[in-house]
Amino acid sequence: MEKYIILDHGSGGLASQNLIGSLFLKYLKNSVLNQLEDAAVLPPEHGQIAFSTDSYVVDPVFFPGGNIGELAVNGTINDLAMRGARPICLSLGLILEEGFAVDELEKIIKSIANACDYAGVPVVTGDTKVVPRGKADKIFINTSGIGIVEENININASQAQPGDIILLSGTLADHGITILTSREGLQVDANLLSDTRPLHFLAQAIVKDFPGAIHTMRDPTRGGLGTTLSEIAKTTKLCMEIEENSIPMHAEVRAACELMGLDPLYLANEGKCMVLAAPEYAEEILHRMRSVPEGRDTAIIGRVSEKHAGRVVLTTVAGGRRLVEPLSGEPLPRIC
Amino acid sequence: MEKYIILDHGSGGLASQNLIGSLFLKYLKNSVLNQLEDAAVLPPEHGQIAFSTDSYVVDPVFFPGGNIGELAVNGTINDLAMRGARPICLSLGLILEEGFAVDELEKIIKSIANACDYAGVPVVTGDTKVVPRGKADKIFINTSGIGIVEENININASQAQPGDIILLSGTLADHGITILTSREGLQVDANLLSDTRPLHFLAQAIVKDFPGAIHTMRDPTRGGLGTTLSEIAKTTKLCMEIEENSIPMHAEVRAACELMGLDPLYLANEGKCMVLAAPEYAEEILHRMRSVPEGRDTAIIGRVSEKHAGRVVLTTVAGGRRLVEPLSGEPLPRIC
Repeated sequence: MEKYIILDHGSGGLASQNLIGSLFLKYLKNSVLNQLEDAAVLPPEHGQIAFSTDSYVVDPVFFPGGNIGELAVNGTINDLAMRGARPICLSLGLILEEGFAVDELEKIIKSIANACDYAGVPVVTGDTKVVPRGKADKIFINTSGIGIVEENININASQAQPGDIILLSGTLADHGITILTSREGLQVDANLLSDTRPLHFLAQAIVKDFPGAIHTMRDPTRGGLGTTLSEIAKTTKLCMEIEENSIPMHAEVRAACELMGLDPLYLANEGKCMVLAAPEYAEEILHRMRSVPEGRDTAIIGRVSEKHAGRVVLTTVAGGRRLVEPLSGEPLPRIC
Repeated sequence: MEKYIILDHGSGGLASQNLIGSLFLKYLKNSVLNQLEDAAVLPPEHGQIAFSTDSYVVDPVFFPGGNIGELAVNGTINDLAMRGARPICLSLGLILEEGFAVDELEKIIKSIANACDYAGVPVVTGDTKVVPRGKADKIFINTSGIGIVEENININASQAQPGDIILLSGTLADHGITILTSREGLQVDANLLSDTRPLHFLAQAIVKDFPGAIHTMRDPTRGGLGTTLSEIAKTTKLCMEIEENSIPMHAEVRAACELMGLDPLYLANEGKCMVLAAPEYAEEILHRMRSVPEGRDTAIIGRVSEKHAGRVVLTTVAGGRRLVEPLSGEPLPRIC
């Protein structure tokens, strides 16, 4: 095997087949992927079909707490999970820059395999392209995924109701602040780690245990909690009222945000889910979410009302109230 | 709307929403995509689920006969079609370079919409990332797709049988030679055009009309017919015997290949399908394929035998015989 990616690895010929055999199948092998057909064929499933896609261009490729590979696996699983789907498989599309180190690629593929194993969701089909040096930046990954949604389940932004509680499954802004400090080479705090993780176990737990009570779920990635809430407010023409005091946050993240003048409401999360749910089950849902490891720090952070149609209102630590606007600029390109 | 893509268009914030609303939904709108949820949810389907992914990095982005957008739509539809699937939906993942012209992007999105309409396969979910100038080359597109395969259908490389006829649905090497001459700025012949087109109508026609008789289908893209046949020979340990004389080819393509010293067997096709089928239906399948517009030039180009296990043997125009090896090098990076 070569030490660096060459154009031939994207040719569809022998070098491609070598890369597939000695690297991709080595770590990702399963009965469907092994067939190496142009499309995977999977057994029939009962239920609605969920489908999602995301490309990952995160810089740096390796960061504290993870790398682009597991991020790509978890990110697409989470997009499916937020619709109440049970993810069943992923596709993996790689765009590699000529000259990318094969041992770095191997680390990424290994991490993809580990993330897939942990989540119980296999890669069943894939594609690799190689572009000349300088025409891409190391590696871009697209993952698409299919999930199955039981027929009675309908979870989306427009299901939110006045009175719904707003839950957040854990600490805010971990991924965003980690990427930023890691990219800039800042040694702000050694404890800053990306929160990349799959959320389908958590989401499925509450969807199954509280049928009809889970109205909306979103993972606040790019644009952060502020933008995600704004989108839901805009879609529903309802008011999202949140309490700054109730939002879980690591002290290190809070300190780093203050130091750099960044608002954690707009920083990306890659392992947190926001749930809008019927208030009569508030305590039970909170308890159930906390019983799942990735929901251990779940908190009720606010409530849906009709106070300011289409707006997000934050009650600050000091007791003041301010409107949270959707993100307009780009504080952090290539965050995921 | 800005004239050029800026980093903000990938932020997940207002600029992203603006791009989605004023460009993507303008052309691609449908009841599922319009919801703008993180994952699309589609009604239940009966049958096996086919799943495929491909990233497109073709250079140049616009070429005679097409552009990267319709290529991405047709390419993934074809990967599904080759397993006997009825494609039901696509995802669209864009990676844009900062500074890419918005009117070029609009042309591409329009062409994606036209290709989807023609094929009857909607884009139901998508994602857009923007990377800084110089970190990608204009635009990369990933399309993934879902199709449904009837439960009794099992079409793949390992189904090929000794005695099977080998059909090719039309002229060879059109896409590959067009991209090469177009990229190099060569004015070889104004009649060179990419053959990008969807093949699911053609594939479904024979799969439905000749149940059990269609053993293997492949669209010989990267690596060309030579590499595709080699893969099938290797998988099945059978011999693929083809006749150079029988392979349809445009005179302009043949001339350009001779001029540039390229073997058309290794050049990419983006709208041709190769079919391995039971010999007792040879004439009927040939006739049926020719009755579909995109199969008009179908020819029987050879036969599966046990003569040289795992090899592809070409009978040349001059009557000699030579082995066709799989592609080893990369004659044409970024062909698709």
